[in-house]
Amino acid sequence: MDFYTYWRSSAAYRLRIAFNLKGIAVSPVQINLHPEASEQKGSAYRAKNPQGRVPAIEVGSEIIGQSMAILEWLEETYPEPAILPKDPVERLRAREFADIIACDIHPLNNLSVLSVLREQFGADKEAIERWYSDWIIRGFTALEVLAERQSGEFLFGAAPMIAEICLIPQIYNARRFDVDLAPFPRLLDLDQACSKLPAFQAATPEAVKPD
Amino acid sequence: MDFYTYWRSSAAYRLRIAFNLKGIAVSPVQINLHPEASEQKGSAYRAKNPQGRVPAIEVGSEIIGQSMAILEWLEETYPEPAILPKDPVERLRAREFADIIACDIHPLNNLSVLSVLREQFGADKEAIERWYSDWIIRGFTALEVLAERQSGEFLFGAAPMIAEICLIPQIYNARRFDVDLAPFPRLLDLDQACSKLPAFQAATPEAVKPD
Repeated sequence: MDFYTYWRSSAAYRLRIAFNLKGIAVSPVQINLHPEASEQKGSAYRAKNPQGRVPAIEVGSEIIGQSMAILEWLEETYPEPAILPKDPVERLRAREFADIIACDIHPLNNLSVLSVLREQFGADKEAIERWYSDWIIRGFTALEVLAERQSGEFLFGAAPMIAEICLIPQIYNARRFDVDLAPFPRLLDLDQACSKLPAFQAATPEAVKPD
Repeated sequence: MDFYTYWRSSAAYRLRIAFNLKGIAVSPVQINLHPEASEQKGSAYRAKNPQGRVPAIEVGSEIIGQSMAILEWLEETYPEPAILPKDPVERLRAREFADIIACDIHPLNNLSVLSVLREQFGADKEAIERWYSDWIIRGFTALEVLAERQSGEFLFGAAPMIAEICLIPQIYNARRFDVDLAPFPRLLDLDQACSKLPAFQAATPEAVKPD
């Protein structure tokens, strides 16, 4: 399965963790998102993936994007080990946790959004950092409360699932932007627990960065 | 089932359509998001729903948010009529379509984001309108291509499903901000087809606006 990816994309990082947890072999196709390359905007890639974003996967003859949709497809197609709990309400809570990241934190800190802030609103480095941090802090404040309600080492099962798959890349991004994570001890414990697992270790941006 | 909602929230609009399609009776609890009320930010609501957003539903003794997570739970708990296709790749494509809206258009046009643009970046009415429109146009440009690949009256089945559930509220928002929809004829045809159905008619903001 071709996997269109960029080492620093945190949505691609989610999928790398899921592939590793489920033991799925993929063929990475590098799409360089660096502003000097911007391969995702090129007509060759857009003809395949109209949204011109990564990650995406090739299924049959089609390229399909959106990491959260792909996680659901992976779970349906490669059910073991599960990344969603079995109980319907637990599944709802796991997806709620993941979607707070995928819908209310990550989209606001996307490269394309930061570009618009710079170009149309004259945002300088400080303004960008404040914007970036603020959305993480708002989201993490809710996630910390939700995470504290769960007593296990991981959130919704004996092993990391969709919630951790989304959380760990978002914590990575928070560290890149020097967000103070001290107010989120439960999230940091989860990060610590996941960081011991080979599936997470092999998925980090540094582990997959092309030479 | 208690349904925490606001008439103008387009994520709540998604859930109203799904409830209507599936024939699920809910008890709406109005949370006034108007800046002069901002009930979603109040401590009473936040104690129940840490993210302080709508929509949310009460399941058992818990209030759980995130409209896309709730749509998945609805599908698992009330499977008929389905809002996801049966075929795994079709399910992936339907979720991809929905997530382009839920992850890459709607979050950028959220009330909380527009407030930050005004307060921290001094955005005036014109700048806000440009921001709002631009994210819709970028997303709709990809969605129009994806929609053109589907030949039926609806996208992924003989009836509207998750893709239309997300699309129609987003088109409603586009019209509120006077976005020119002429470049998206296939999306307009879908809107037209859905607008004839009682489940969609009864879910519009105008149909549910409190007196």
